[in-house]
Amino acid sequence: MLERILMPTHSREVRLASRPKGEPTLDNFAFATVEVPDPRPGEVLVRNVCMSVDPYMRGRMNDSKSYVPPFQIGHPLEGGAVGRVVASQDKRLPVGTYVQSFLGWREAFVAPAANLQIVDVGVAPPSAYLGILGITGLTAWAGLFRIANLKRDETVFVSGGAGAVGSAVCQLARLHGCRVLASASSEEKVAYLRDVLKVEYAFNYREGNPLDQLKTGAPNGIDVYFDNTGGPQLEAALYALRTHGRVALCGGISGYNTPVPGPRNLMLAIGKRLRLEGFIVSDFLKDLPAFLAEAVPALRSGKLIHRETVVHGIDAAPAALLDLLHSGASNIGKMIVHLAD
Amino acid sequence: MLERILMPTHSREVRLASRPKGEPTLDNFAFATVEVPDPRPGEVLVRNVCMSVDPYMRGRMNDSKSYVPPFQIGHPLEGGAVGRVVASQDKRLPVGTYVQSFLGWREAFVAPAANLQIVDVGVAPPSAYLGILGITGLTAWAGLFRIANLKRDETVFVSGGAGAVGSAVCQLARLHGCRVLASASSEEKVAYLRDVLKVEYAFNYREGNPLDQLKTGAPNGIDVYFDNTGGPQLEAALYALRTHGRVALCGGISGYNTPVPGPRNLMLAIGKRLRLEGFIVSDFLKDLPAFLAEAVPALRSGKLIHRETVVHGIDAAPAALLDLLHSGASNIGKMIVHLAD
Repeated sequence: MLERILMPTHSREVRLASRPKGEPTLDNFAFATVEVPDPRPGEVLVRNVCMSVDPYMRGRMNDSKSYVPPFQIGHPLEGGAVGRVVASQDKRLPVGTYVQSFLGWREAFVAPAANLQIVDVGVAPPSAYLGILGITGLTAWAGLFRIANLKRDETVFVSGGAGAVGSAVCQLARLHGCRVLASASSEEKVAYLRDVLKVEYAFNYREGNPLDQLKTGAPNGIDVYFDNTGGPQLEAALYALRTHGRVALCGGISGYNTPVPGPRNLMLAIGKRLRLEGFIVSDFLKDLPAFLAEAVPALRSGKLIHRETVVHGIDAAPAALLDLLHSGASNIGKMIVHLAD
Repeated sequence: MLERILMPTHSREVRLASRPKGEPTLDNFAFATVEVPDPRPGEVLVRNVCMSVDPYMRGRMNDSKSYVPPFQIGHPLEGGAVGRVVASQDKRLPVGTYVQSFLGWREAFVAPAANLQIVDVGVAPPSAYLGILGITGLTAWAGLFRIANLKRDETVFVSGGAGAVGSAVCQLARLHGCRVLASASSEEKVAYLRDVLKVEYAFNYREGNPLDQLKTGAPNGIDVYFDNTGGPQLEAALYALRTHGRVALCGGISGYNTPVPGPRNLMLAIGKRLRLEGFIVSDFLKDLPAFLAEAVPALRSGKLIHRETVVHGIDAAPAALLDLLHSGASNIGKMIVHLAD
C-alpha cells in the first residue's frame, strides 16, 4: 500500500550549468523542474526540509579527480539534506519519518529506503543533523581527536572559527578542557566567538598580522591548529606551534577559487617535530555514533549550541554557496537552505 | 697511572668567527690552536681520527632558537667524531680504545670517559660510525620506519639520494622490499644511485621537471617521500603521493641559505589524507641499538655499503661544510674529514 501525504509531483533542482574558471558565478548554475515518480516497492518519496551548503562543493565543480567525483554538467548537484517521507513503499520508513541523505539541491526525490538514515527530530531540529549533530560536527570531532590527538589543557587555534565546522571546533575543544583561539573575518563574527562560544581569544584575521594575534592570544604558543583556510593563517600557525604541535588540515578556503602561495616556513616542522595531516570526514563515518553519544546530551543540556544562518527556498541556494566561498562569508555557524516545513 | 701514546700537547680547532648572512663563506670560520691538558682522574685524552660534516650545522651558525643551541662566536664548532684514546685516567677506556663523541672540529680533546661511546673498529672502519652505522644511518631508519611507517612493497622517493642520509634511505628501503626513486644533482651521482645502490629509478632533478620524472619512475604514484630538500621536489612529491601517503621532513637544503617558496599544493593533503611530519634524529637515539642490530650484519654481509667522500686535515673542514650546503654538493655518500690514522 502506498501511503501519501502532500505528495509533490514535481521537484525543482539545481544543476551544474558550466564549470567555473576561478571564482564561480551564478551562471555556473541552472534550475530545472523534474517529475517525481511514484515510489516502487522498497522506495520512499522524500520532500526535503532543509539542505546543507558546504565549501567542499567548490572542488566538485571542477572536472578533476579527487576524493569525491566531480559534479556532472546538466546533472543536479548533491549535498547533505534532511527531509520527510511523504509517500512510502517500505515499512521501515513510514510517512512522516525524517531522514537524512546526500540528495540535497532538489526539493524532492525518490530513493531506496535502505539508502536513507532516520533522524530523531525529538532530540534536535532537522537542520541540526546537517550541522552540529551531522557531518559538520563529526568533521570537527575527527580533526580534533582523531587527527590532531587533542589533549586536555592544550591550546588550539582554529581559523574560520565562526563558520560551521569552526564553531563546532571551538565548542568541542572547550568542552574538552582546552584553551581556544579562533579567527574570523568580521567584528560580528569575532563578537559571536567571544560572547556566545566563549573562546579565550578571538580575532579578526583581516586586522593586523595573524602571527601577532596568535602571540597575543597564546604567548607560549599553540599545540594544535585546525586549518580551515590555508594561506597566511597556516603560515602564522606554523610559527606559533610549539614542539610536537599538530595541524589538522581540513580546508583551504583561502585558495579554493584562486591559488595562494604555500607556507614559506614549512621546514620549521623539522626542528619542532610538527605533524600536518589532511583528512576528510567520510573516513570517519563509523565514528558518528560515538560522536553523537557525546554530542546529543551536550546539545540537550545547552553545553553545545547549534547556530545557523538560514536562507529560504532552493532558488537562494547557489548564491549561498558563492557567499560561503569568500573569505568574509556572511554566515555565522552552519549555512542552511530551508526548503519546506 | 696515566698511560700515554703519541700524546698531543696541542689541538687545532675550527671556531665560528662570525654569523653568516645568507650563504656562509670561509670568513665565517677561524682557526686556533689550544693546549690540551693532561686528563684528570675519570678523563681521557682523545685524538680524533675522523669527523662528520653535516648540513644541519648551517642552522647552528645562526643565532636563533632551535632544537640545538647555536654555535657561539669565538668557540669551537661541534659535530660527530670518532677518535682514539691516547691517554687515559679511566680504566673503562684504555689507551687505544676508539670512541665516538660530538667533539669534532678539533684534533684532540680531554673529556670524561663517561661521556664517550666505545666503537668496535673490528666490525667496521671508524668513519662508518659517523655514517651508515651512526647518526646518519639512524636518521634514515627513523624517518622511514618511525615517521613514515614504510611498509614492504611500497614506493619511496628520496631527494638528495646520493648524500649521506639519502644513500642510507635508498639502501634501507630496498632491504625492506620497497621500490626506490631517488634524485641527485649530477650524472655521476645518478650513476651511483642506479649502478651501486641499485635503486629502481634515479634522476637528475636539475634536468626537466621533477614531477615528470616521478611520473616516469612511478606511474602509479609514491607512498612515501623522504624529504632532504624542500622546495620544488617537495611540491612535486605532494602531487605524486598516493592516498594516505606520508612525508618524512628531514631536511630543507634548498632553503638553508636562502628562503624558498612553500609548496603551493599543500592542500592536496586534505583529499589524499597525506601526513607530513618533521623529525630530528636525537629523539631516536634510544633506537640506535635496534638499528645497529639490523645494520651491522647487513654491512658485514655486503647488503649495506658505506660510501664516503673524504677530505684531509682540519683545515679542509670549513670548505667541506660550505660545499655540502649547495644543491650540487660534490660529495657522494657521507662527507668525512680525515684527521689522523
